Amino acid sequence: MAGLLITLEGGEGAGKSTVLEALKAVLAEGGREVVCTREPGGTPEGEAIRELLLRPGQHLVPEAELLLMFAARAQLVRQVIRPALARGAAVLADRFTDASFAYQGGGRGLDTGHIAELERWAAGLRPDLTFLLDVGVAQGLARARSRGGEPDRIESEREEFFERVRAAYLARARAEPARFRVIDASQPAATVRDAAVAALREWLGTRP
Amino acid sequence: MAGLLITLEGGEGAGKSTVLEALKAVLAEGGREVVCTREPGGTPEGEAIRELLLRPGQHLVPEAELLLMFAARAQLVRQVIRPALARGAAVLADRFTDASFAYQGGGRGLDTGHIAELERWAAGLRPDLTFLLDVGVAQGLARARSRGGEPDRIESEREEFFERVRAAYLARARAEPARFRVIDASQPAATVRDAAVAALREWLGTRP
Repeated sequence: MAGLLITLEGGEGAGKSTVLEALKAVLAEGGREVVCTREPGGTPEGEAIRELLLRPGQHLVPEAELLLMFAARAQLVRQVIRPALARGAAVLADRFTDASFAYQGGGRGLDTGHIAELERWAAGLRPDLTFLLDVGVAQGLARARSRGGEPDRIESEREEFFERVRAAYLARARAEPARFRVIDASQPAATVRDAAVAALREWLGTRP
Repeated sequence: MAGLLITLEGGEGAGKSTVLEALKAVLAEGGREVVCTREPGGTPEGEAIRELLLRPGQHLVPEAELLLMFAARAQLVRQVIRPALARGAAVLADRFTDASFAYQGGGRGLDTGHIAELERWAAGLRPDLTFLLDVGVAQGLARARSRGGEPDRIESEREEFFERVRAAYLARARAEPARFRVIDASQPAATVRDAAVAALREWLGTRP
Protein backbone atom coordinates (compact mmCIF):
# COMPACT_ATOMS: atom_id res chain seq x y z
CA MET A 1 0.00 0.00 0.00
CA ALA A 2 1.48 3.36 -1.02
CA GLY A 3 1.77 6.01 1.66
CA LEU A 4 -0.49 9.06 1.59
CA LEU A 5 0.27 12.58 2.71
CA ILE A 6 -2.89 14.50 3.51
CA THR A 7 -2.66 18.02 4.89
CA LEU A 8 -5.11 20.23 6.68
CA GLU A 9 -4.78 23.98 6.30
CA GLY A 10 -6.71 26.97 7.52
CA GLY A 11 -6.48 30.19 9.47
CA GLU A 12 -7.22 30.83 13.12
CA GLY A 13 -10.52 29.37 14.40
CA ALA A 14 -11.23 27.35 11.26
CA GLY A 15 -11.96 24.23 13.33
CA LYS A 16 -9.05 22.08 12.26
CA SER A 17 -8.98 19.89 15.39
CA THR A 18 -12.51 18.48 14.94
CA VAL A 19 -11.90 17.76 11.26
CA LEU A 20 -8.53 16.18 11.98
CA GLU A 21 -10.07 13.63 14.35
CA ALA A 22 -12.77 12.71 11.83
CA LEU A 23 -10.35 12.35 8.90
CA LYS A 24 -8.07 10.24 11.06
CA ALA A 25 -10.92 7.83 11.82
CA VAL A 26 -11.80 7.48 8.11
CA LEU A 27 -8.19 6.85 7.11
CA ALA A 28 -7.79 4.20 9.83
CA GLU A 29 -10.91 2.26 8.77
CA GLY A 30 -9.16 -0.37 6.65
CA GLY A 31 -6.59 -0.94 9.40
CA ARG A 32 -4.16 1.47 7.81
CA GLU A 33 -1.60 3.11 10.09
CA VAL A 34 -2.31 6.82 10.48
CA VAL A 35 0.40 9.20 11.65
CA CYS A 36 -0.67 12.68 12.77
CA THR A 37 1.79 15.56 12.77
CA ARG A 38 1.58 19.23 13.56
CA GLU A 39 3.57 22.20 12.35
CA PRO A 40 5.71 23.80 13.41
CA GLY A 41 6.84 20.93 15.61
CA GLY A 42 6.23 17.20 15.53
CA THR A 43 9.76 16.22 16.58
CA PRO A 44 11.66 17.14 19.78
CA GLU A 45 13.87 19.52 17.76
CA GLY A 46 10.84 20.89 15.90
CA GLU A 47 8.95 21.52 19.13
CA ALA A 48 11.92 23.53 20.42
CA ILE A 49 11.78 25.55 17.19
CA ARG A 50 8.01 25.96 17.62
CA GLU A 51 8.52 27.37 21.10
CA LEU A 52 11.00 29.88 19.69
CA LEU A 53 8.66 30.83 16.82
CA LEU A 54 5.55 31.40 18.89
CA ARG A 55 7.11 33.02 21.98
CA PRO A 56 5.31 36.33 22.52
CA GLY A 57 7.40 39.50 22.58
CA GLN A 58 10.02 38.11 20.19
CA HIS A 59 10.99 40.24 17.17
CA LEU A 60 11.78 37.75 14.45
CA VAL A 61 12.42 39.21 11.01
CA PRO A 62 10.22 37.56 8.33
CA GLU A 63 13.17 35.78 6.70
CA ALA A 64 14.14 34.20 10.04
CA GLU A 65 10.54 33.16 10.66
CA LEU A 66 10.40 31.43 7.26
CA LEU A 67 13.72 29.67 7.78
CA LEU A 68 12.72 28.46 11.25
CA MET A 69 9.46 27.07 9.82
CA PHE A 70 11.39 25.16 7.16
CA ALA A 71 14.00 23.98 9.68
CA ALA A 72 11.22 22.35 11.71
CA ARG A 73 9.67 20.99 8.49
CA ALA A 74 12.97 19.54 7.20
CA GLN A 75 13.31 17.70 10.50
CA LEU A 76 9.69 16.48 10.46
CA VAL A 77 9.87 15.24 6.87
CA ARG A 78 13.05 13.25 7.42
CA GLN A 79 12.38 11.91 10.89
CA VAL A 80 8.63 11.27 10.74
CA ILE A 81 6.86 11.76 7.41
CA ARG A 82 9.20 9.96 4.98
CA PRO A 83 9.63 6.89 7.22
CA ALA A 84 5.83 6.74 7.72
CA LEU A 85 5.15 7.00 3.97
CA ALA A 86 7.74 4.29 3.35
CA ARG A 87 5.79 2.01 5.73
CA GLY A 88 2.61 2.70 3.72
CA ALA A 89 1.03 4.83 6.43
CA ALA A 90 -1.33 7.73 5.89
CA VAL A 91 0.21 10.90 7.25
CA LEU A 92 -2.32 13.48 8.35
CA ALA A 93 -0.53 16.78 8.79
CA ASP A 94 -1.95 19.71 10.69
CA ARG A 95 -0.40 22.35 8.38
CA PHE A 96 2.46 21.92 5.93
CA THR A 97 4.21 23.96 3.24
CA ASP A 98 1.02 25.71 2.04
CA ALA A 99 1.01 27.42 5.45
CA SER A 100 4.39 29.01 4.67
CA PHE A 101 3.05 30.31 1.35
CA ALA A 102 0.03 31.71 3.22
CA TYR A 103 1.63 33.09 6.41
CA GLN A 104 5.16 34.03 5.38
CA GLY A 105 4.36 34.67 1.70
CA GLY A 106 0.87 36.23 1.90
CA GLY A 107 0.99 37.44 5.50
CA ARG A 108 4.58 38.72 5.71
CA GLY A 109 5.02 39.52 2.02
CA LEU A 110 8.11 37.37 1.41
CA ASP A 111 8.95 36.43 -2.19
CA THR A 112 7.14 33.17 -2.96
CA GLY A 113 10.01 32.14 -5.25
CA HIS A 114 12.19 31.65 -2.15
CA ILE A 115 9.45 29.60 -0.50
CA ALA A 116 9.07 27.42 -3.61
CA GLU A 117 12.83 26.87 -3.61
CA LEU A 118 12.75 25.75 0.04
CA GLU A 119 9.77 23.53 -0.70
CA ARG A 120 11.82 21.73 -3.37
CA TRP A 121 14.89 20.86 -1.34
CA ALA A 122 14.15 21.41 2.36
CA ALA A 123 10.68 19.84 2.42
CA GLY A 124 11.21 17.76 -0.72
CA LEU A 125 7.67 16.41 -0.92
CA ARG A 126 4.17 17.67 -1.63
CA PRO A 127 0.81 16.54 -0.25
CA ASP A 128 -1.42 14.14 -2.17
CA LEU A 129 -4.52 15.92 -0.90
CA THR A 130 -5.03 19.18 1.01
CA PHE A 131 -8.09 20.37 2.88
CA LEU A 132 -8.44 24.10 3.23
CA LEU A 133 -10.90 25.09 5.93
CA ASP A 134 -11.92 28.54 4.83
CA VAL A 135 -13.64 31.01 7.14
CA GLY A 136 -13.93 34.81 7.18
CA VAL A 137 -11.22 36.43 9.27
CA ALA A 138 -13.53 38.15 11.77
CA GLN A 139 -15.49 34.94 12.41
CA GLY A 140 -12.34 32.83 12.71
CA LEU A 141 -10.64 35.23 15.12
CA ALA A 142 -13.78 35.48 17.26
CA ARG A 143 -13.85 31.68 17.53
CA ALA A 144 -10.13 31.45 18.30
CA ARG A 145 -10.40 34.16 20.97
CA SER A 146 -13.41 32.52 22.60
CA ARG A 147 -11.14 29.54 23.35
CA GLY A 148 -9.32 31.86 25.75
CA GLY A 149 -5.66 31.69 26.70
CA GLU A 150 -2.87 34.10 25.80
CA PRO A 151 -2.50 34.58 22.04
CA ASP A 152 0.92 33.47 20.72
CA ARG A 153 3.20 35.72 18.62
CA ILE A 154 1.46 34.92 15.33
CA GLU A 155 -2.09 34.91 16.76
CA SER A 156 -1.37 38.47 17.97
CA GLU A 157 -1.15 39.83 14.42
CA ARG A 158 -3.69 42.33 13.13
CA GLU A 159 -6.73 41.48 11.00
CA GLU A 160 -5.12 42.70 7.74
CA PHE A 161 -2.39 40.10 8.24
CA PHE A 162 -4.98 37.31 8.42
CA GLU A 163 -6.84 38.72 5.39
CA ARG A 164 -3.62 38.35 3.38
CA VAL A 165 -3.12 34.82 4.78
CA ARG A 166 -6.64 33.85 3.73
CA ALA A 167 -6.27 35.36 0.25
CA ALA A 168 -2.97 33.49 -0.27
CA TYR A 169 -4.53 30.18 0.83
CA LEU A 170 -7.48 30.67 -1.56
CA ALA A 171 -5.16 31.60 -4.43
CA ARG A 172 -3.19 28.37 -3.90
CA ALA A 173 -6.41 26.34 -3.87
CA ARG A 174 -7.54 27.94 -7.14
CA ALA A 175 -4.16 27.24 -8.72
CA GLU A 176 -4.23 23.54 -7.78
CA PRO A 177 -7.86 22.40 -7.84
CA ALA A 178 -6.93 18.71 -8.18
CA ARG A 179 -5.06 18.72 -4.88
CA PHE A 180 -7.22 21.10 -2.84
CA ARG A 181 -10.63 20.60 -1.27
CA VAL A 182 -11.92 23.92 0.05
CA ILE A 183 -14.43 23.48 2.86
CA ASP A 184 -16.67 26.36 3.92
CA ALA A 185 -15.72 26.53 7.58
CA SER A 186 -18.18 29.31 8.45
CA GLN A 187 -20.72 26.50 8.93
CA PRO A 188 -21.31 24.69 12.26
CA ALA A 189 -18.48 22.33 13.28
CA ALA A 190 -20.47 19.14 12.55
CA THR A 191 -21.34 20.34 9.02
CA VAL A 192 -17.70 21.25 8.33
CA ARG A 193 -16.58 17.86 9.63
CA ASP A 194 -19.13 15.97 7.51
CA ALA A 195 -18.19 17.89 4.37
CA ALA A 196 -14.51 17.08 4.90
CA VAL A 197 -15.25 13.41 5.56
CA ALA A 198 -17.40 13.17 2.41
CA ALA A 199 -14.67 14.80 0.33
CA LEU A 200 -12.07 12.42 1.73
CA ARG A 201 -14.23 9.34 1.03
CA GLU A 202 -14.85 10.52 -2.51
CA TRP A 203 -11.14 11.11 -3.11
CA LEU A 204 -10.16 7.73 -1.63
CA GLY A 205 -12.75 6.10 -3.94
CA THR A 206 -11.00 7.49 -7.02
CA ARG A 207 -7.66 5.95 -6.06
CA PRO A 208 -6.51 2.64 -7.47
CA MET B 1 32.71 56.84 5.72
CA ALA B 2 31.41 53.66 4.11
CA GLY B 3 30.76 50.71 6.40
CA LEU B 4 33.04 47.67 6.30
CA LEU B 5 32.15 44.04 6.87
CA ILE B 6 35.19 42.02 7.89
CA THR B 7 34.78 38.37 8.82
CA LEU B 8 36.97 35.94 10.67
CA GLU B 9 36.72 32.27 9.81
CA GLY B 10 38.47 29.13 10.94
CA GLY B 11 38.00 25.71 12.44
CA GLU B 12 38.20 24.65 16.08
CA GLY B 13 41.26 25.91 17.98
CA ALA B 14 42.40 28.29 15.23
CA GLY B 15 42.79 31.13 17.73
CA LYS B 16 40.05 33.43 16.50
CA SER B 17 39.52 35.24 19.83
CA THR B 18 43.07 36.65 20.06
CA VAL B 19 43.00 37.80 16.44
CA LEU B 20 39.54 39.32 16.85
CA GLU B 21 40.71 41.56 19.69
CA ALA B 22 43.75 42.74 17.72
CA LEU B 23 41.77 43.47 14.53
CA LYS B 24 39.19 45.34 16.56
CA ALA B 25 41.88 47.61 18.01
CA VAL B 26 43.28 48.38 14.53
CA LEU B 27 39.84 49.16 13.11
CA ALA B 28 39.03 51.47 16.02
CA GLU B 29 42.27 53.49 15.65
CA GLY B 30 40.83 56.37 13.67
CA GLY B 31 37.90 56.64 16.04
CA ARG B 32 35.73 54.47 13.84
CA GLU B 33 32.87 52.61 15.51
CA VAL B 34 33.54 48.85 15.56
CA VAL B 35 30.70 46.37 16.04
CA CYS B 36 31.64 42.79 16.89
CA THR B 37 29.22 39.93 16.20
CA ARG B 38 29.36 36.21 16.57
CA GLU B 39 27.56 33.41 14.75
CA PRO B 40 25.31 31.70 15.29
CA GLY B 41 23.82 34.30 17.62
CA GLY B 42 24.44 38.01 18.08
CA THR B 43 20.78 38.91 18.71
CA PRO B 44 18.45 37.62 21.48
CA GLU B 45 16.57 35.52 18.89
CA GLY B 46 19.85 34.35 17.35
CA GLU B 47 21.27 33.34 20.73
CA ALA B 48 18.16 31.21 21.33
CA ILE B 49 18.78 29.57 17.94
CA ARG B 50 22.46 29.10 18.87
CA GLU B 51 21.47 27.30 22.05
CA LEU B 52 19.24 24.99 20.01
CA LEU B 53 21.96 24.35 17.42
CA LEU B 54 24.75 23.52 19.85
CA ARG B 55 22.78 21.56 22.46
CA PRO B 56 24.52 18.20 22.85
CA GLY B 57 22.45 15.07 22.24
CA GLN B 58 20.19 16.75 19.67
CA HIS B 59 19.70 15.00 16.33
CA LEU B 60 19.29 17.79 13.82
CA VAL B 61 19.16 16.73 10.18
CA PRO B 62 21.71 18.67 8.05
CA GLU B 63 18.99 20.65 6.23
CA ALA B 64 17.53 21.84 9.56
CA GLU B 65 21.01 22.76 10.81
CA LEU B 66 21.63 24.88 7.69
CA LEU B 67 18.24 26.60 7.93
CA LEU B 68 18.74 27.40 11.61
CA MET B 69 22.15 28.91 10.84
CA PHE B 70 20.59 31.13 8.18
CA ALA B 71 17.65 32.03 10.42
CA ALA B 72 20.10 33.39 13.00
CA ARG B 73 22.08 35.10 10.23
CA ALA B 74 18.99 36.72 8.66
CA GLN B 75 18.16 38.17 12.06
CA LEU B 76 21.74 39.36 12.68
CA VAL B 77 22.07 41.02 9.26
CA ARG B 78 18.82 42.95 9.59
CA GLN B 79 18.99 43.88 13.26
CA VAL B 80 22.70 44.50 13.72
CA ILE B 81 24.95 44.38 10.63
CA ARG B 82 22.97 46.48 8.13
CA PRO B 83 22.20 49.26 10.63
CA ALA B 84 25.87 49.32 11.68
CA LEU B 85 27.09 49.49 8.07
CA ALA B 86 24.60 52.29 7.40
CA ARG B 87 26.18 54.26 10.28
CA GLY B 88 29.60 53.78 8.67
CA ALA B 89 30.80 51.33 11.34
CA ALA B 90 33.25 48.50 10.79
CA VAL B 91 31.53 45.20 11.55
CA LEU B 92 33.91 42.48 12.68
CA ALA B 93 32.09 39.17 12.47
CA ASP B 94 33.25 36.00 14.20
CA ARG B 95 32.07 33.67 11.42
CA PHE B 96 29.59 34.41 8.63
CA THR B 97 28.26 32.72 5.51
CA ASP B 98 31.60 31.11 4.59
CA ALA B 99 31.13 29.00 7.73
CA SER B 100 27.93 27.54 6.28
CA PHE B 101 29.73 26.62 3.08
CA ALA B 102 32.46 24.98 5.18
CA TYR B 103 30.44 23.25 7.93
CA GLN B 104 27.10 22.47 6.29
CA GLY B 105 28.43 22.26 2.72
CA GLY B 106 31.86 20.65 3.23
CA GLY B 107 31.24 19.01 6.60
CA ARG B 108 27.66 17.78 6.15
CA GLY B 109 27.78 17.40 2.36
CA LEU B 110 24.80 19.65 1.58
CA ASP B 111 24.46 21.00 -1.97
CA THR B 112 26.33 24.32 -2.09
CA GLY B 113 23.80 25.63 -4.63
CA HIS B 114 21.20 25.76 -1.85
CA ILE B 115 23.66 27.59 0.41
CA ALA B 116 24.47 30.12 -2.34
CA GLU B 117 20.73 30.69 -2.81
CA LEU B 118 20.28 31.38 0.91
CA GLU B 119 23.33 33.65 0.88
CA ARG B 120 21.66 35.76 -1.82
CA TRP B 121 18.33 36.42 -0.17
CA ALA B 122 18.52 35.43 3.52
CA ALA B 123 21.95 36.94 4.25
CA GLY B 124 21.86 39.38 1.34
CA LEU B 125 25.37 40.71 1.80
CA ARG B 126 28.95 39.53 1.47
CA PRO B 127 32.07 40.47 3.45
CA ASP B 128 34.52 43.06 2.14
CA LEU B 129 37.43 41.11 3.62
CA THR B 130 37.68 37.65 5.20
CA PHE B 131 40.46 36.23 7.35
CA LEU B 132 40.77 32.47 7.31
CA LEU B 133 42.84 31.16 10.21
CA ASP B 134 44.02 27.84 8.86
CA VAL B 135 45.41 25.11 11.10
CA GLY B 136 45.72 21.33 10.74
CA VAL B 137 42.75 19.50 12.21
CA ALA B 138 44.70 17.49 14.79
CA GLN B 139 46.53 20.57 16.10
CA GLY B 140 43.34 22.66 16.17
CA LEU B 141 41.35 20.02 18.01
CA ALA B 142 44.14 19.48 20.54
CA ARG B 143 44.14 23.23 21.26
CA ALA B 144 40.35 23.39 21.51
CA ARG B 145 40.25 20.40 23.85
CA SER B 146 42.99 21.79 26.07
CA ARG B 147 40.62 24.70 26.84
CA GLY B 148 38.48 22.15 28.69
CA GLY B 149 34.70 22.25 29.07
CA GLU B 150 32.12 19.97 27.52
CA PRO B 151 32.30 19.93 23.72
CA ASP B 152 29.09 21.19 22.05
CA ARG B 153 27.16 19.24 19.41
CA ILE B 154 29.33 20.40 16.51
CA GLU B 155 32.64 20.22 18.42
CA SER B 156 31.80 16.55 19.10
CA GLU B 157 32.09 15.60 15.40
CA ARG B 158 34.81 13.25 14.21
CA GLU B 159 38.12 14.32 12.67
CA GLU B 160 37.00 13.49 9.10
CA PHE B 161 34.22 16.05 9.49
CA PHE B 162 36.72 18.77 10.37
CA GLU B 163 39.01 17.72 7.50
CA ARG B 164 36.11 18.35 5.11
CA VAL B 165 35.38 21.69 6.80
CA ARG B 166 39.02 22.74 6.41
CA ALA B 167 39.16 21.66 2.76
CA ALA B 168 35.95 23.60 1.99
CA TYR B 169 37.32 26.74 3.66
CA LEU B 170 40.57 26.51 1.70
CA ALA B 171 38.70 25.95 -1.56
CA ARG B 172 36.66 29.10 -0.96
CA ALA B 173 39.81 31.09 -0.22
CA ARG B 174 41.42 29.87 -3.46
CA ALA B 175 38.30 30.78 -5.42
CA GLU B 176 38.20 34.34 -4.06
CA PRO B 177 41.78 35.44 -3.46
CA ALA B 178 40.90 39.16 -3.51
CA ARG B 179 38.56 38.79 -0.54
CA PHE B 180 40.43 36.17 1.52
CA ARG B 181 43.58 36.45 3.60
CA VAL B 182 44.69 32.99 4.70
CA ILE B 183 46.77 33.08 7.88
CA ASP B 184 48.85 30.08 8.91
CA ALA B 185 47.36 29.48 12.35
CA SER B 186 49.69 26.61 13.25
CA GLN B 187 52.13 29.32 14.43
CA PRO B 188 52.20 30.72 17.98
CA ALA B 189 49.23 32.96 18.84
CA ALA B 190 51.28 36.19 18.79
CA THR B 191 52.67 35.41 15.32
CA VAL B 192 49.18 34.63 13.99
CA ARG B 193 47.86 37.85 15.49
CA ASP B 194 50.68 39.96 14.02
CA ALA B 195 50.21 38.41 10.57
CA ALA B 196 46.49 39.20 10.64
CA VAL B 197 47.10 42.76 11.82
CA ALA B 198 49.68 43.35 9.07
CA ALA B 199 47.29 41.98 6.44
CA LEU B 200 44.49 44.21 7.71
CA ARG B 201 46.71 47.33 7.71
CA GLU B 202 47.85 46.56 4.20
CA TRP B 203 44.26 46.08 2.99
CA LEU B 204 43.07 49.28 4.69
CA GLY B 205 45.94 51.13 2.99
CA THR B 206 44.67 50.13 -0.45
CA ARG B 207 41.23 51.59 0.19
CA PRO B 208 40.25 55.07 -1.00
